[in-house]
Amino acid sequence: MAPPSSGPPAGHNDHLVQSDNPDHPANLIPSLCAKFWTLGWVTGTGGGASIREDDLVYIAPSGVQKELMKPADIYVLSLAAQAQSLDRRNRVYLRSPPSYKPSQCTPLFLAAFTKRRAGCCIHTHSHWAVLVTLLLETQGAGKDREFRINNIEQIKGFGRGFEKTGNLGYHDTLVIPVIENTAHEEDLTEFLEEAMDKYPDTYAVLVRRHGVYVWGDNVHKAKTQCESLDYLFQLAVEMKRLNLPWITDIEPVTPRKS
Amino acid sequence: MAPPSSGPPAGHNDHLVQSDNPDHPANLIPSLCAKFWTLGWVTGTGGGASIREDDLVYIAPSGVQKELMKPADIYVLSLAAQAQSLDRRNRVYLRSPPSYKPSQCTPLFLAAFTKRRAGCCIHTHSHWAVLVTLLLETQGAGKDREFRINNIEQIKGFGRGFEKTGNLGYHDTLVIPVIENTAHEEDLTEFLEEAMDKYPDTYAVLVRRHGVYVWGDNVHKAKTQCESLDYLFQLAVEMKRLNLPWITDIEPVTPRKS
Amino acid sequence: MAPPSSGPPAGHNDHLVQSDNPDHPANLIPSLCAKFWTLGWVTGTGGGASIREDDLVYIAPSGVQKELMKPADIYVLSLAAQAQSLDRRNRVYLRSPPSYKPSQCTPLFLAAFTKRRAGCCIHTHSHWAVLVTLLLETQGAGKDREFRINNIEQIKGFGRGFEKTGNLGYHDTLVIPVIENTAHEEDLTEFLEEAMDKYPDTYAVLVRRHGVYVWGDNVHKAKTQCESLDYLFQLAVEMKRLNLPWITDIEPVTPRKS
Amino acid sequence: MAPPSSGPPAGHNDHLVQSDNPDHPANLIPSLCAKFWTLGWVTGTGGGASIREDDLVYIAPSGVQKELMKPADIYVLSLAAQAQSLDRRNRVYLRSPPSYKPSQCTPLFLAAFTKRRAGCCIHTHSHWAVLVTLLLETQGAGKDREFRINNIEQIKGFGRGFEKTGNLGYHDTLVIPVIENTAHEEDLTEFLEEAMDKYPDTYAVLVRRHGVYVWGDNVHKAKTQCESLDYLFQLAVEMKRLNLPWITDIEPVTPRKS
Repeated sequence: MAPPSSGPPAGHNDHLVQSDNPDHPANLIPSLCAKFWTLGWVTGTGGGASIREDDLVYIAPSGVQKELMKPADIYVLSLAAQAQSLDRRNRVYLRSPPSYKPSQCTPLFLAAFTKRRAGCCIHTHSHWAVLVTLLLETQGAGKDREFRINNIEQIKGFGRGFEKTGNLGYHDTLVIPVIENTAHEEDLTEFLEEAMDKYPDTYAVLVRRHGVYVWGDNVHKAKTQCESLDYLFQLAVEMKRLNLPWITDIEPVTPRKS
Repeated sequence: MAPPSSGPPAGHNDHLVQSDNPDHPANLIPSLCAKFWTLGWVTGTGGGASIREDDLVYIAPSGVQKELMKPADIYVLSLAAQAQSLDRRNRVYLRSPPSYKPSQCTPLFLAAFTKRRAGCCIHTHSHWAVLVTLLLETQGAGKDREFRINNIEQIKGFGRGFEKTGNLGYHDTLVIPVIENTAHEEDLTEFLEEAMDKYPDTYAVLVRRHGVYVWGDNVHKAKTQCESLDYLFQLAVEMKRLNLPWITDIEPVTPRKS
Repeated sequence: MAPPSSGPPAGHNDHLVQSDNPDHPANLIPSLCAKFWTLGWVTGTGGGASIREDDLVYIAPSGVQKELMKPADIYVLSLAAQAQSLDRRNRVYLRSPPSYKPSQCTPLFLAAFTKRRAGCCIHTHSHWAVLVTLLLETQGAGKDREFRINNIEQIKGFGRGFEKTGNLGYHDTLVIPVIENTAHEEDLTEFLEEAMDKYPDTYAVLVRRHGVYVWGDNVHKAKTQCESLDYLFQLAVEMKRLNLPWITDIEPVTPRKS
Repeated sequence: MAPPSSGPPAGHNDHLVQSDNPDHPANLIPSLCAKFWTLGWVTGTGGGASIREDDLVYIAPSGVQKELMKPADIYVLSLAAQAQSLDRRNRVYLRSPPSYKPSQCTPLFLAAFTKRRAGCCIHTHSHWAVLVTLLLETQGAGKDREFRINNIEQIKGFGRGFEKTGNLGYHDTLVIPVIENTAHEEDLTEFLEEAMDKYPDTYAVLVRRHGVYVWGDNVHKAKTQCESLDYLFQLAVEMKRLNLPWITDIEPVTPRKS
């Protein structure tokens, strides 16, 4: 099931994942994933994260326990070299760990890096994301499902959109598209890219009965947007249980003196 | 969106945030916020905390990951200097971190410090606080919403009120006012101050679809009141799910022999 | 509100709370309480724990943040000296911390130590305990409420009763009495002792809208019984939400060959 | 209640549980169990874990606080010696801790090791597992209950079956049999072995109102399958609360270009 790949011999370019700096991507991916594990986002090897620094992309391998990952487990590939490859599924890794397989999420992370110039992309299997997609199933037949919520302060945690400055406001409606899940995760790429085209300002795409992909210009923005979104998904599920609507009409309030 | 501010050059007054004492405000704010992050109170840079020691006010900056904050990130301002400023939005910082913006919560924290002589003020985006305000929406039309609960032991976790001694009792009704949320957090200040005037004994104000502000005479009281309140908000949501009323009529029990 | 007490001058008998042994009661109470705080049992200074070793009783003070407690904060009293006191509310402490007040839970802990020869008693404000008492309110009018559950494996986590050997079985019905809450925690003592008399085999007593007291012959048993009970309370609330009864009639199954 | 056992004198073969390698079974069982405690899987001494390396089986003792276990607490037995024993209940331990009793789970762990050549077996009392068995009770009268769920991505976390390669797919139906609980845990063995015979490809068996046994070819697989299953149990309970069915009919989607 893993895509074909070619790479350097074991030990080659190991310096790419060796650094004393805790903010180096090879150190940051393991520490972020350990944190995400405690949040229930990457249970049982599900989910993952990838960081891009300029041309270099750092990716966690397939099938590892995310809270136990080590810098030496990280794959590194060149975005430019990848772009020149005729076969987008034939990836050339600058550095590979000795005993793992590349993540099936790789082309989805690359879509965020190439189409949105993201600096980080996070994939979670959070229960709340999955439950939101399940609740949306009950609200209509079509494939073109969207999660929509407005008038919640945490919506301010999202940027207004690709190449736009500033964040969404309290009264704005956050819209997250939902794509169909496919039998093979790589096959999601096409749907993810379509969603990016149709929703050019979104920083996240839900995958039906699967989870969510969230990205940002850098690690800080990807992580805080992913946290804010998970917060909203959980809130939305709790609201549904209490029979509260996700979309409401609230008149903005103007302070009198200011 | 950030308010205008002027401050000293970078590096000036850095000693105000440098201490080996873990209870120094510049150390305590980061460690408290890291703890609050694990409680889901300051997800995705939301929420925050501020401590006042005599004239000096220590505040976390805007937009940081709260569990990663460092003492060097903290702003310091003088309450007296701030009070003399003609324009309450033009704040003079004694010490500023090099690469952040001041928190939009600043005037709200200052309101607690000046109007209630609080020593610490905490702002959370806790799901439970937001859900309580959502549930209150369904219970009536007016803007003058209050969260009311009685006959729960944890109510004893609150002081009886500003400049009063002792705490609330088991049979007392805890009343927390709810204010409207505004597009810009600074604009909440007016509503918060109004609520303080109308509810002089409250130590907390809920913000609709946003979260809660909780204060106390010192860090200990602000934190334990904030924990007790979050406990009560969660209990209130669970009670609503189970169809149990927040207010009941219970006859006090007198022990026979004592 | 704190009971009158007399004690030695500050610093006297400090050796009673100084030990390098992590299992010494003065070290164990803080480490247990820090763990209980993460479980939501002792939020906002609520709840507490006490350990008895022979004649000496170690108790956490009133009003401290339970996850921050230190060995130096612990009170120590002599059970024998206490028993000889004519006024049971006038407690003589062998060792007192310099700046705290004794816990209002003290006479309740003492009841477990004297009437049941317990080695440890834990008091939690767990949401699940409070919710169980709230759910029981809806099931009948009288004061004589009991939590009853059977046919759940975790019931095996409880001893069969005071001075009895062995534990409850899977098919046994666990019965936990509920006592009325009083305005002052000390006044609960009378009700707790009555419940101990009426339910001689119970290791726990629920307090309406307040929490639970759980004890055991030693720290290990008190803690694991308290954990098992909190597990059952949470399960019971979830069962109620899903409309599943707490008591069922299940025929024991006999394996064929053994 | 504990089965008869004979073993070496205290101190004999202690080298079997002494290693500096954190991945040695005697070190791994305590660190895994501490992690499981934080997940609510082994509350109040419930649940446990066992690891097999070739002929040697390492097992946690009965009745310990699982987050406090130490390598010195671990039992070791020989699978070959055990197989030769005429009386399967008379176990010969190569190494025994000085002051504990063997776990009643022992014959259940051995069933996974002998019938499935598992390298690790985990037993949890997770609320979600228990609630799933309770929900299944309401769906029919017979004893032959199964938990069935399909079209959820996390299903990919399971191997296709004993001696089969590859994992289940997104559209596959995961089937976990439920066995009756017995008064004595050892007596479950017969039912567990029957379920293994009837469901040769399962890696887990639910025990009614008790919990779940999950195994795998090695520690990695047992742990990640156990996590994935707990994730699905929790999701299933949340789905039931929201009135969403566990089994649905979804047409596989074929990407257009690939």
